[in-house]
Amino acid sequence: MAKKQQEFVTQITPREENFSQWYTDVVLKTEMVDYGPVKGTMVIRPYGYGVWELIQKEMDARFKATGHENAYFPLLIPKSFLEREAEHVEGFAPEVAWVTRGGTEELAEPLVVRPTSETIICEMYAKWLQSWRDLPMMMNQWCNVVRWEKATRPFLRTSEFLWQEGHTLHATAEEAQEETLKMLEVYREFAENVLAIPVFCGQKSEREKFAGAAATYSIEAMMQDGRALQAGTSHNLGQHFAKVFDIKFLDKDGSHKYAWQTSWGTSTRMIGAIVMVHGDERGLVLPPKVAPIQVVILPIAAHKEGVLDKAYELKARLEAAGIRVKVDDREGQSAGWKFNEWEMRGVPMRMEVGPRDIENGQVVVVRRDTLEKEFLPMEGLEAAIEERLQLVHDGLYQKALKLRESKTVDATTYDELKAGVEKGFVHAMWCGDEACEEEIKAETGATTRNMPFEQKPFSDVCVHCGKPAKYEIYFAKSY
Amino acid sequence: MAKKQQEFVTQITPREENFSQWYTDVVLKTEMVDYGPVKGTMVIRPYGYGVWELIQKEMDARFKATGHENAYFPLLIPKSFLEREAEHVEGFAPEVAWVTRGGTEELAEPLVVRPTSETIICEMYAKWLQSWRDLPMMMNQWCNVVRWEKATRPFLRTSEFLWQEGHTLHATAEEAQEETLKMLEVYREFAENVLAIPVFCGQKSEREKFAGAAATYSIEAMMQDGRALQAGTSHNLGQHFAKVFDIKFLDKDGSHKYAWQTSWGTSTRMIGAIVMVHGDERGLVLPPKVAPIQVVILPIAAHKEGVLDKAYELKARLEAAGIRVKVDDREGQSAGWKFNEWEMRGVPMRMEVGPRDIENGQVVVVRRDTLEKEFLPMEGLEAAIEERLQLVHDGLYQKALKLRESKTVDATTYDELKAGVEKGFVHAMWCGDEACEEEIKAETGATTRNMPFEQKPFSDVCVHCGKPAKYEIYFAKSY
Ligand SMILES: [Zn+2]
Ligand SMILES: [Zn+2]
Repeated sequence: MAKKQQEFVTQITPREENFSQWYTDVVLKTEMVDYGPVKGTMVIRPYGYGVWELIQKEMDARFKATGHENAYFPLLIPKSFLEREAEHVEGFAPEVAWVTRGGTEELAEPLVVRPTSETIICEMYAKWLQSWRDLPMMMNQWCNVVRWEKATRPFLRTSEFLWQEGHTLHATAEEAQEETLKMLEVYREFAENVLAIPVFCGQKSEREKFAGAAATYSIEAMMQDGRALQAGTSHNLGQHFAKVFDIKFLDKDGSHKYAWQTSWGTSTRMIGAIVMVHGDERGLVLPPKVAPIQVVILPIAAHKEGVLDKAYELKARLEAAGIRVKVDDREGQSAGWKFNEWEMRGVPMRMEVGPRDIENGQVVVVRRDTLEKEFLPMEGLEAAIEERLQLVHDGLYQKALKLRESKTVDATTYDELKAGVEKGFVHAMWCGDEACEEEIKAETGATTRNMPFEQKPFSDVCVHCGKPAKYEIYFAKSY
Repeated sequence: MAKKQQEFVTQITPREENFSQWYTDVVLKTEMVDYGPVKGTMVIRPYGYGVWELIQKEMDARFKATGHENAYFPLLIPKSFLEREAEHVEGFAPEVAWVTRGGTEELAEPLVVRPTSETIICEMYAKWLQSWRDLPMMMNQWCNVVRWEKATRPFLRTSEFLWQEGHTLHATAEEAQEETLKMLEVYREFAENVLAIPVFCGQKSEREKFAGAAATYSIEAMMQDGRALQAGTSHNLGQHFAKVFDIKFLDKDGSHKYAWQTSWGTSTRMIGAIVMVHGDERGLVLPPKVAPIQVVILPIAAHKEGVLDKAYELKARLEAAGIRVKVDDREGQSAGWKFNEWEMRGVPMRMEVGPRDIENGQVVVVRRDTLEKEFLPMEGLEAAIEERLQLVHDGLYQKALKLRESKTVDATTYDELKAGVEKGFVHAMWCGDEACEEEIKAETGATTRNMPFEQKPFSDVCVHCGKPAKYEIYFAKSY
């Protein structure tokens, strides 16, 4: 068993040695993902897709509860649509895939494989929106998008990824802003309560906002290497797109007005965040709410009478309580090998059931996050497991929060900023000048992440250029 | 109210006058779908997408119950992959969309936007499959596919559609055949028990089989105009793809063997089938199990005290019982207008609640399929509604079955076949010769649909050419 354990551990590069290689090892070896045949593409394997399905289920319920409906818009967008909004085309044109032939014919107008769907949705919304009675118009779409990226990494940055994109129209600027912030709050609550990932919420700088938006807000998470990962964005699009796509409605007062618009999205890169926030030297650690298997039951001395039956009986009981359970009754693998495999795969709880346990009316459970071992009576097991899954969730969240706190520094000098972004997040005052922001990026590799909603200035001058400070903001290197 | 009713009805072309236009009117006016900006594409609007979500939920549960897991494979496939299997490239190359540019670069090898994913999945399976222990390998994918079609109609034939595609590998030919038929049976059970659509199951002819398959099986449904719609297919791929993609495993006996493979799929065209099987002169009639709204509650004299409260109270009670309910409390529309709108939208049951009903402790319910009106006591309403939704389902199924029976004829002469396919399905004996099949198609517009599993010959000679009959088969014009 010691040898086997060694084998598993050596499959994964230590985090301290090379965090990037550790990440790649974990996502490949746990069979969450594989490289696709076309450069920069990924195949999401069943274990990774299982996480995505749970993410979808949790998010979709939240979108519906806030009044949104799902729809599906076409993949292929006429080139001319992309070109209508100046900032938008500038932002996306360099990274789109072009369809130039259909069947045996050259197309008169090339088509873009959607990198995002604002333009095609605007075209339809302009057709559908007639009167104030049609507002708000609130749809979401679950789909694939393609962005022709040069440097790619599974989940984090790939030429194709899966995501959801919400698109809404409103009668007033106030309602659009309210929706923008409401959906950011949905993302925050989801990240913290489902993924166990603490996030900073705030507004992006002009430089970092979405191409075509009036304002972009984000949730930013810290990975274990101190880098930021933007895990979701919510955009107030103002009337930028409404004006170029002519999205108008007849208002109560009898006049025609342009609608106010929002869009917001999250993607499969959240899976990358889960890995990089919670994983450890043994591999993956999945937050219970998105773990495809929450409890793996390992029968000990499975050949002995009653052991397998009891394992399946417990599985049935736990499943009836809504817990996702797998019995690993594979022959030909030792218990030790299995322990290590399920640890690597990040299953939140392991349960062992052997003849002696059955005699004593108990099971052994081991938490993946702390590796703490505990005996639990079979009676009332459902409630005990539910409680422990919540404890795992809470433990993961607190651990991530502590790490973030330990790697976030307040900087009032540029030297402090430079040192800080080597380690994690830097909390600083900034002049708001794009040129200053560019210089910081060029010199340190760090970008502005976002500006907290409740601004609490703690210095009068910009951390870099010394001009008057305008914004409290976070800087970090990012994924 | 009479005038309003008239208005709704005149929005929809009568079925007898022009079935095709009736279909288009129904899918557009119920806001299930709209035309996309690129020729041949569709936008699935929330009401249509709601049906798709319910289809997905029901099917996905069946796939998982039969041991399949979901995964996601890339959209873009290298041209060379498509070309490896000779029949496959011949079948699909004329109708694919080509990506030739990424960002600002011309691609060295053009990429195909997936028309189906056999080739790219084979590439990955070849990499993942090592030993007999990895078998069976059983995955499903929910995704979009693109086929560059000339003549298109919403849901029925579009340049892009949504579907699921299952792909499995097995150790033996027998297991692959068993899987092929098992999934066909899943489709049949789903079509009949969820969509209330009776289907004929059987094997396709060589001419009509999937490009690259050893054998294709289908479920075939009859639309109200007597045409067939292939609502799902299941393919035994034999070792055709395994040999060209080198999908091998080390078997128990120590030798390397090619795997046996299946694939199976259904798509958003099922929504078109629902419309064309169950719809009537008032518009859509949705089978209850995939109706986004199963019961619409219309408060009568909603301004009177207690009416709205009671409507929402009933909604809450029904929802707690798992029924999908909407209260239509819009002001400014008459009850008659609303009755007609919800009839057009095919909501299976309408419920009216007014002051007198509240006094009497009852509600009025009207079945969409029969328009039968009934008083139901508020007490025990949940069970009564559940029972009636099942009655609507059964009624729709029986009605469709009767129509199919009335439009299916046994033909022993070519004249009978020619007359029969003008009206519906023709059940006949056929020689099995592809040239004979081609002639029938050229002369009558009808194709072979499928061959029942239990062959019961009823004539010795082919219905067309007079050569010895080999197969009992259905002929029909089709969508
Ligand atoms: Zn500055
Ligand atoms: Zn013949």
